[in-house]
Amino acid sequence: MTVDLEARYHAYLAVLNERRLDDLAQFVHERLTYNDEEITGGGYRDMIAADIAAVPDLVFDPHLVVVSGDRVACRLVFRCTPREEFLGFTPDGEQVSFAEHVFYRFDEGRIAAVTSLIDRWSIATQLRDRARPSR
Amino acid sequence: MTVDLEARYHAYLAVLNERRLDDLAQFVHERLTYNDEEITGGGYRDMIAADIAAVPDLVFDPHLVVVSGDRVACRLVFRCTPREEFLGFTPDGEQVSFAEHVFYRFDEGRIAAVTSLIDRWSIATQLRDRARPSR
Repeated sequence: MTVDLEARYHAYLAVLNERRLDDLAQFVHERLTYNDEEITGGGYRDMIAADIAAVPDLVFDPHLVVVSGDRVACRLVFRCTPREEFLGFTPDGEQVSFAEHVFYRFDEGRIAAVTSLIDRWSIATQLRDRARPSR
Repeated sequence: MTVDLEARYHAYLAVLNERRLDDLAQFVHERLTYNDEEITGGGYRDMIAADIAAVPDLVFDPHLVVVSGDRVACRLVFRCTPREEFLGFTPDGEQVSFAEHVFYRFDEGRIAAVTSLIDRWSIATQLRDRARPSR
């Protein structure tokens, strides 16, 4: 009957955090939208794989989760040390912390739509302030 | 028994959009947190009043709403023309569009906590790109 979508969402985050990307297809449709752009499940996997490659200590840490019907909303908080270019930023070797507030629509237990807002402004501010320590 | 929190949230947005800020106290506790900082209901009202003064055509337009228990998550989309400094940005007289992804905790039908992420990066990008039309 009703899927326990919150448990399912936490299982999806565990796949990401345990780097079991082969299991992603169980949680993500073959065609989905990411911020209203149509992408494939393979493209979604590639995006996450690239993030993990650039940021080996990336952990998806849910601080707030709201689930209703086929929708999940989550506040993810990241504290990580990017090693390569990440989200368009050149890392400085130090830790950055930032949030992502993301909405998902699930369809039969798999993600069909992602609407994500990542706090790039905060990342840019941290990098800039460290580059100008006299401020 | 159970408050219809989604209806209550839409009523709160109507208060903002109809500029009935005297009614805000019905929807906001006298003490609340905004991004983990303790503020007063009056301080929250002042913040919104300042936003509206700087951006007369500010409309809170919910594109996604997820409600469960005492929690509301919402994607708000703004298309507006700031007239004075807004979110730290100096306006250029043109329209900007940006999203806010915001989580609320309600307590007895009134907002007790707000965790907001506003897409400042997008605003900065729009202003910068218009300031350098040759890019």
